[in-house]
Amino acid sequence: MSQQNLEALDVEAIREEFPILEREFDDQQVVYLDNAATTQTPDPVVDAMSDYYRRYNSNVHRGIHHLSQEASEAYEEAHDRVAEFIGASGGREEVIFTKNTTESENLLAYSWGLNELGPEDEVVLTEMEHHASLVTWQQIAMRTGASVEYIRVDEEGRLDMDHAEELITDETALVSAVHVSNTLGTVNPVSELTDLAHEHDALSFIDGAQAVPNQPVDVEEIDADFYAFSGHKMAGPTGIGVLYGKKELLEAMEPYLYGGGMIRKVTFEESTWGDLPWKFEPGTPPIAEAVGLHAAVDWLEEIGMDRIREHEQDLARYAYERLEDEGDVEIYGPEPGPDRGGLVSFNLENVHAHDLTSIMNDHTIAVRAGDHCTQPLHDKLGVPASTRASFYVYNTREEVDKLVAALDDARQLFA
Amino acid sequence: MSQQNLEALDVEAIREEFPILEREFDDQQVVYLDNAATTQTPDPVVDAMSDYYRRYNSNVHRGIHHLSQEASEAYEEAHDRVAEFIGASGGREEVIFTKNTTESENLLAYSWGLNELGPEDEVVLTEMEHHASLVTWQQIAMRTGASVEYIRVDEEGRLDMDHAEELITDETALVSAVHVSNTLGTVNPVSELTDLAHEHDALSFIDGAQAVPNQPVDVEEIDADFYAFSGHKMAGPTGIGVLYGKKELLEAMEPYLYGGGMIRKVTFEESTWGDLPWKFEPGTPPIAEAVGLHAAVDWLEEIGMDRIREHEQDLARYAYERLEDEGDVEIYGPEPGPDRGGLVSFNLENVHAHDLTSIMNDHTIAVRAGDHCTQPLHDKLGVPASTRASFYVYNTREEVDKLVAALDDARQLFA
Repeated sequence: MSQQNLEALDVEAIREEFPILEREFDDQQVVYLDNAATTQTPDPVVDAMSDYYRRYNSNVHRGIHHLSQEASEAYEEAHDRVAEFIGASGGREEVIFTKNTTESENLLAYSWGLNELGPEDEVVLTEMEHHASLVTWQQIAMRTGASVEYIRVDEEGRLDMDHAEELITDETALVSAVHVSNTLGTVNPVSELTDLAHEHDALSFIDGAQAVPNQPVDVEEIDADFYAFSGHKMAGPTGIGVLYGKKELLEAMEPYLYGGGMIRKVTFEESTWGDLPWKFEPGTPPIAEAVGLHAAVDWLEEIGMDRIREHEQDLARYAYERLEDEGDVEIYGPEPGPDRGGLVSFNLENVHAHDLTSIMNDHTIAVRAGDHCTQPLHDKLGVPASTRASFYVYNTREEVDKLVAALDDARQLFA
Repeated sequence: MSQQNLEALDVEAIREEFPILEREFDDQQVVYLDNAATTQTPDPVVDAMSDYYRRYNSNVHRGIHHLSQEASEAYEEAHDRVAEFIGASGGREEVIFTKNTTESENLLAYSWGLNELGPEDEVVLTEMEHHASLVTWQQIAMRTGASVEYIRVDEEGRLDMDHAEELITDETALVSAVHVSNTLGTVNPVSELTDLAHEHDALSFIDGAQAVPNQPVDVEEIDADFYAFSGHKMAGPTGIGVLYGKKELLEAMEPYLYGGGMIRKVTFEESTWGDLPWKFEPGTPPIAEAVGLHAAVDWLEEIGMDRIREHEQDLARYAYERLEDEGDVEIYGPEPGPDRGGLVSFNLENVHAHDLTSIMNDHTIAVRAGDHCTQPLHDKLGVPASTRASFYVYNTREEVDKLVAALDDARQLFA
């Protein structure tokens, strides 16, 4: 927030590390506002991965030769670096590398949910959950007989915390909530939700895919039992996600994927499991991607997560106000403030989101149209789709101005 | 084979695309013979991924803007290219991108095995299966009540096909076999095994992690129902694996991971699934890795898979013969010939594999010691571990000579 008097970002210097932002289509430079889908990847991250392949590519799990030693160390240190970044004091044992946030959620659902849930249990979600969480728990509930409940989203796009208190009871086994909504931009009170869960001896899972890239996150301050996010939304590579879990919980959980590298002893009859986190990482893991994620964390911390949050919130506020001034734009989610992240989803009156997004693309403005993997929330909002502009560290107010200016074309063509 | 009169590889020219092979430790150039664990990655593959991040990085699933269109096309075309490479005439719908071979095997185990197997069913494996297959089917069998049987490996390291005929019966639901053993080097008669499975209305799964990188593979010629392999063992990137499946079988299978991008319709109550292959690829997939895998396939085909096989088999034969001449080396697996791939696992008399591998590393020779994720097979061989030298397109006879020369040091120190 501005009262912190943080030094503003040198956006021009930052943009120089992203050659993709120089690209032009039809002589117009790309305006990339699709960051909630995936962020761009700065040169130091790309270079770290190329360097891995060109200098020390090898399989890990502590092979004896030099290259495997270097690769193993880099792979293990990436876990430590991520743990440090999110405040996980247990280090690498609390950080599992998956392929994306979706797999992180499914890992929990299979390893814990499928084994522990029964017909007497309730899983409490929110109406603004991403499909990765919503569909996964629906399916696990169907298999186990557990039931799924949804904390209501109020008119302003915030969670109805009175409803949360009603729903979270001694029957609740898990509270699963998105930290920052990828559709509404709402920053949810995840500490409160976790406290409510713990008061009733339930576990908490937080989907941080839209939080970790954009603001400081401390999983121990939240007291989350499990927390998930992806590399490609935080200036890192595709092909890697993270599941954080408290060590004692992960230790008690069965693996859900089986294979090499996670084994203690195998006979033709049975198997026993190895140590954390490798127990949950069978097969050759995403090694180059871990190196890239490490570099991305270094790059983000060099800038500072509090400054990144301030920059994005400033852009979101500016976009919100400019769109609101238009008069014919419906914006979803809370008004700008500390509980709103760096994205704005909206609809232009009488224009379908896909048409609007197509017009935007004629101006080489990259925004996303659709249900953003929150179909039930869109049903509740009464629209099939919305257009989403989502900001990152390299975006500018001038880019927001271009977005707003392009609305006129859409009005002329469709309204 | 030499009777094909294939033009020999220009290994020196090939090596120029692998800067890692120039690395030195203690003034000795790396001799990289750990290719069955992971192959090295040529510059064109690394460059293709860097180019993705620097020019058209975006989330896929047909976003409307230019960058997403380019990324979506590249991602989809990578599926087509891989399908073409392995002879899958159904194209992209038959090729699912996973994170590694291990996940490919688990996908089949969860999506098909967990739903279809029951106490009356048998899964027939071989004694030389990798843990990724062996442990996975053990676990799924425990959950479903199915039983697991193992086709015997004979004294020469080949499958006992008489035993296979005994084991594969009308109770068999699945025959799961490794195409090329990562420990013995045996090239198994996977077409025969698949025919046996089909005669009894069972399905066949082939683990091709050590086959696709090293020889021409045509899944339709084999008539495999399912076939799996990894990017990082075929000059491609980490973080991507493949599951091929016949379209009608994949269509009938339930997904096992749930999330965005694989959905047709979601409500707060239920969900329906999208089309192949996306039904099995929820969340943001390994996009850069798919681009890298496409480049790796192009690179391999430019050289020619038959020439690669010939080169590796020549090196394996040379290594086998040189090691055999030493007199105190026990070599596992069949004698050199058409049913032996490009790797040699062995033990030096009176020297533990880990000690030998450590001595090799003193000479900057990278080989792997351990059970190579085939513990039960090593139990059967009566050794806790072996040393494995595995060859790829850039290896030379001179490197084999260095390996053999280093044995003397081990004898002096340990024997």
